Amino acid sequence: MHLFIHHTSASLTLNENASPEVRADFERHFNATVPEDAPYYRHTLEGPDDMPAHLKGSILGFSLTLPVKDGALLLGTWQGIYLCEHRDRGGRRTLTATLTGE
Amino acid sequence: MHLFIHHTSASLTLNENASPEVRADFERHFNATVPEDAPYYRHTLEGPDDMPAHLKGSILGFSLTLPVKDGALLLGTWQGIYLCEHRDRGGRRTLTATLTGE
Amino acid sequence: MHLFIHHTSASLTLNENASPEVRADFERHFNATVPEDAPYYRHTLEGPDDMPAHLKGSILGFSLTLPVKDGALLLGTWQGIYLCEHRDRGGRRTLTATLTGE
Repeated sequence: MHLFIHHTSASLTLNENASPEVRADFERHFNATVPEDAPYYRHTLEGPDDMPAHLKGSILGFSLTLPVKDGALLLGTWQGIYLCEHRDRGGRRTLTATLTGE
Repeated sequence: MHLFIHHTSASLTLNENASPEVRADFERHFNATVPEDAPYYRHTLEGPDDMPAHLKGSILGFSLTLPVKDGALLLGTWQGIYLCEHRDRGGRRTLTATLTGE
Repeated sequence: MHLFIHHTSASLTLNENASPEVRADFERHFNATVPEDAPYYRHTLEGPDDMPAHLKGSILGFSLTLPVKDGALLLGTWQGIYLCEHRDRGGRRTLTATLTGE
């Protein structure tokens, strides 16, 4: 199954589905390494959270291709799908899911 | 549709197709966070821009899988395809496009 | 062909298949930029290498979609598949390979 998010400031990735601390550490890590107000940003018109959101988006990616078997996603025990919102106020997000194969 | 770039120092990603500043900020951000001349690089034979190019390549990725509907790419309004050249002089690049489905 | 790794602390990516220095530089770069013991980590129960492993996993990604032609992978001359183990002691890893098309 292919999942695709139609935006440039929100991502899809996989990661641990058990401890919510992992999701919070994700946010803190990417805020630390892709900072707001980097001196080299020129694209600042849409606010300080916009350019970091674009960068985080491409680092984490906008789609997932996941194996399916017997009608169910074949994920690892600890794998869950993360929809990462990189804007402070992201609004509604649109995804497309496509199933391929027999 | 699947797009694949047959190289290890150039990437494919999606991002904003409107402001060219976003593309320039991408280049500045990855140059700042994946520097040339990091003290821990050993693979330096092909020049100071080579190892950073490999790292940027894997961070951004070498392929895109994009949904297609009614014969057209189903991208978000602001999504455009970025071919990211990570070498200073990258030369010619080869891609393969594969269409799957009915 | 789609390759998928069923874990959240090991990745699949492509990169140079010639010099083993590239693989070693990969490890050094990601150890430097996704450090153990970052002050903002809360998910520390499973050891100092666990949260960095989750982050490296999502930065590099958990799957590859690769073109196939005449029964063979259609990779670039220098492209090889990297299975990146991000834990110090990762144990056994499970992958799923799926072939699509005619």
